[in-house]
Amino acid sequence: MSARDRVELAVIGTHRAAVLEALGAEFTLHEVESFDDVAGSLGAAAERIRGGLSSPMIGLSAPMMDALPKLEIVALFGVGLERTDLTHARERGIVVTTTPVLYEDVADTAVVLAMDVSRRITAGDRWVRAGHWGAGGPPASGKRFSGKRAGILGMGRIGRLLAQRLAAFDMTIGYYDPRPAPDVDHRLYSSGVELARESDFLFLCAAGGPGQRDLVDAEMLAALGPEGVFVNIARGWLVDEKALVDAVVTGTIGGAGLDVFADEPNVPRTLREADNVVVLPHIASNTVESRHAMDQCMIDNIRSWFATGKAVTPVP
Amino acid sequence: MSARDRVELAVIGTHRAAVLEALGAEFTLHEVESFDDVAGSLGAAAERIRGGLSSPMIGLSAPMMDALPKLEIVALFGVGLERTDLTHARERGIVVTTTPVLYEDVADTAVVLAMDVSRRITAGDRWVRAGHWGAGGPPASGKRFSGKRAGILGMGRIGRLLAQRLAAFDMTIGYYDPRPAPDVDHRLYSSGVELARESDFLFLCAAGGPGQRDLVDAEMLAALGPEGVFVNIARGWLVDEKALVDAVVTGTIGGAGLDVFADEPNVPRTLREADNVVVLPHIASNTVESRHAMDQCMIDNIRSWFATGKAVTPVP
Repeated sequence: MSARDRVELAVIGTHRAAVLEALGAEFTLHEVESFDDVAGSLGAAAERIRGGLSSPMIGLSAPMMDALPKLEIVALFGVGLERTDLTHARERGIVVTTTPVLYEDVADTAVVLAMDVSRRITAGDRWVRAGHWGAGGPPASGKRFSGKRAGILGMGRIGRLLAQRLAAFDMTIGYYDPRPAPDVDHRLYSSGVELARESDFLFLCAAGGPGQRDLVDAEMLAALGPEGVFVNIARGWLVDEKALVDAVVTGTIGGAGLDVFADEPNVPRTLREADNVVVLPHIASNTVESRHAMDQCMIDNIRSWFATGKAVTPVP
Repeated sequence: MSARDRVELAVIGTHRAAVLEALGAEFTLHEVESFDDVAGSLGAAAERIRGGLSSPMIGLSAPMMDALPKLEIVALFGVGLERTDLTHARERGIVVTTTPVLYEDVADTAVVLAMDVSRRITAGDRWVRAGHWGAGGPPASGKRFSGKRAGILGMGRIGRLLAQRLAAFDMTIGYYDPRPAPDVDHRLYSSGVELARESDFLFLCAAGGPGQRDLVDAEMLAALGPEGVFVNIARGWLVDEKALVDAVVTGTIGGAGLDVFADEPNVPRTLREADNVVVLPHIASNTVESRHAMDQCMIDNIRSWFATGKAVTPVP
């Protein structure tokens, strides 16, 4: 195949060398350097681009699409869609694919964050590393994890995998979802606040469309209460972060396990310094295994589309 | 009841005020100040002591028993028996009780330690707290937890509760126990080394009688291998700690989650400073709920014995 016949792809955001090598062997890749000016970045190639790669934190805006008149498919790394204008993509007939191969890791992270906060794991490790064991008083007692009441906000794929895991810890599981899941046996609550009121652990697993903000607010945190633990493995902007900081500091809630924040990579100092909070750098899906599977999934979607006209994991 | 009629108890080790108050209302308590000289500590009361409290780290030695000729029962806090001479207690007809109400917490701790090491949870929290997120490169990737191979050394009560939990993470579970458990479906290996060789996570859940030392040695750690994670929620002296330190530092194993150590509260500096290790201050059963339940269990055993002649949770 001559260079002239090769399909041309726009590479938006940072992707691993293995992905660029694999796709570069079959396609001509053009790196987009300015996300605000895709046409300017790509020059004459913009007219020829038929496919692309992007990441959830950059996504694919309507102006990006409009700069690429022949765009047929964009493969996103991850499963977040908040920066991608799906409505516009549908109007244009552009296929958007995600990498739905990371859910187990995210559900695992939710479990470990909840247990870490209640059992004081990172706090205990910090205490031992600082040399306090033997030198100070006894270590602080945590609270039991097993047998408690778990509330899941959002009963999608991650929520279901989380419920499967929590059930093995003999937990009572409830959930709130604006779209009830008829195949799920757990109790459906009428609102997030009602769910929080009867939960020891409140897990935010909502997908979070573009319209949603501050799904978890001061009222819901107050309902969770001073013994409750809040866990967020979804998106930071689904939470009123100021209210969360207040709730943690004042003891309105017992603690929080957070993988995501409103303004990443910035984490409010209060959260970074709190002993009843665990702060992770957005790694819920960040395992070697998931990253490889996500890379491969992007590659497979692009290859499959241009070989057969079908994507592997398109957004419906 | 006059003071003269009250049963007298020896209080060995530190116990919470609530326990001493509850028992002090019915019994006369004598604190033992020197564990090496119980008779001297108690003076004339030694001849009248009919019951006692102790803790697993002090236990009840043969000389202690022999200093108390009328001793009928000792209630231990916890479930460890390594410092208690059960053979001598049986010869003397002394009932020893433990507090078998903490197993869920210990199994939970095993899960959280394993997941923490593989997913780099305390390491990630430390990294964010230190302000590296955004300032340095991307966070390091962890390894997936779900779906891996778990090896359980010791299929007792904790091992079974651990297996229940790990199964919900779609793990393949194997075990080694010198006494096979016919009611357990998981694969029984012929030795700890064989088990380690086919495990991604190796959990030490052995009860650890007085004869056992260095159950986990350099050979077993080598069999676990450079991707493997070792978790100890049993006893520190069941592990060759020098071999463990070497294995962690040289990369013979991938990492370790440790609640217990050979010489507590001393934790080798290498372990405290390693990024692939989580170090906890022996808190596997240390929850508010378990501590209350354990306190109550000691009280119930003493009360029941002197009211009905039967203990609630005697060691068989």
